[in-house]
Amino acid sequence: MLGRLNHVAIAVPDLEAATRKYRDVLGAKVSAPQALPEHGVTVVFVELANTKTELLEPLGDRSPIAAFLEKNPSGGIHHMCYEVEDIIASRDALRAEGVRVLGDGEPRTGAHGKPVLFLHPKDFDGTLIELEQV
Amino acid sequence: MLGRLNHVAIAVPDLEAATRKYRDVLGAKVSAPQALPEHGVTVVFVELANTKTELLEPLGDRSPIAAFLEKNPSGGIHHMCYEVEDIIASRDALRAEGVRVLGDGEPRTGAHGKPVLFLHPKDFDGTLIELEQV
Repeated sequence: MLGRLNHVAIAVPDLEAATRKYRDVLGAKVSAPQALPEHGVTVVFVELANTKTELLEPLGDRSPIAAFLEKNPSGGIHHMCYEVEDIIASRDALRAEGVRVLGDGEPRTGAHGKPVLFLHPKDFDGTLIELEQV
Repeated sequence: MLGRLNHVAIAVPDLEAATRKYRDVLGAKVSAPQALPEHGVTVVFVELANTKTELLEPLGDRSPIAAFLEKNPSGGIHHMCYEVEDIIASRDALRAEGVRVLGDGEPRTGAHGKPVLFLHPKDFDGTLIELEQV
């Protein structure tokens, strides 16, 4: 089921400062910030040779990362996103194994314009897993 | 400076249960467990198409992940490891920018037999970063 690691997402309190650190201190290639109001975040993509790190800053009043940053004010790794070929088949197979899919279980359109689902971190050792159909 | 994402390490309270979940529920290719007493962990490698997820369980009395698991009893993402070409040059450049390198700043031999260093999570938005010279 698991394909590539699509990205690791890091919630950050100050996107500009975080971007500077990845670009100027770590010497990584970073994108311009992209506001994604429908996802409640502004994102900067850190382009690595084999995958991406995504820096996420809350946007708007109902950001899905606001509670995480309240608990972790300096930021932290928020989730890992794995690619799958068929998100509905993956969801059904995971549910059959007792895995809790977040929300109503219907894939939403993710930040890359593709269908995504999130799995309950309690079912994976405290790791929030996003699945993205590619 | 930053090359490939070498791996993402997840601290888990029960390596056998975590391995089963990645292998049987998520359908990933996993290695046999490898005890690394000199690193205080037993590790299982989850082989992805483009990188690895590493599942770490404490081994022995002085495991470097013991405190993390006390704080996060269900487990959680512990660190991200990026590849660099020259770890000494990277260390010196990072220090010149004010980044705190953990320990005495001398690279240790990491779990893959290569020189590694860890950077202070407070300097990178709560993310513990490992650099590995490849």
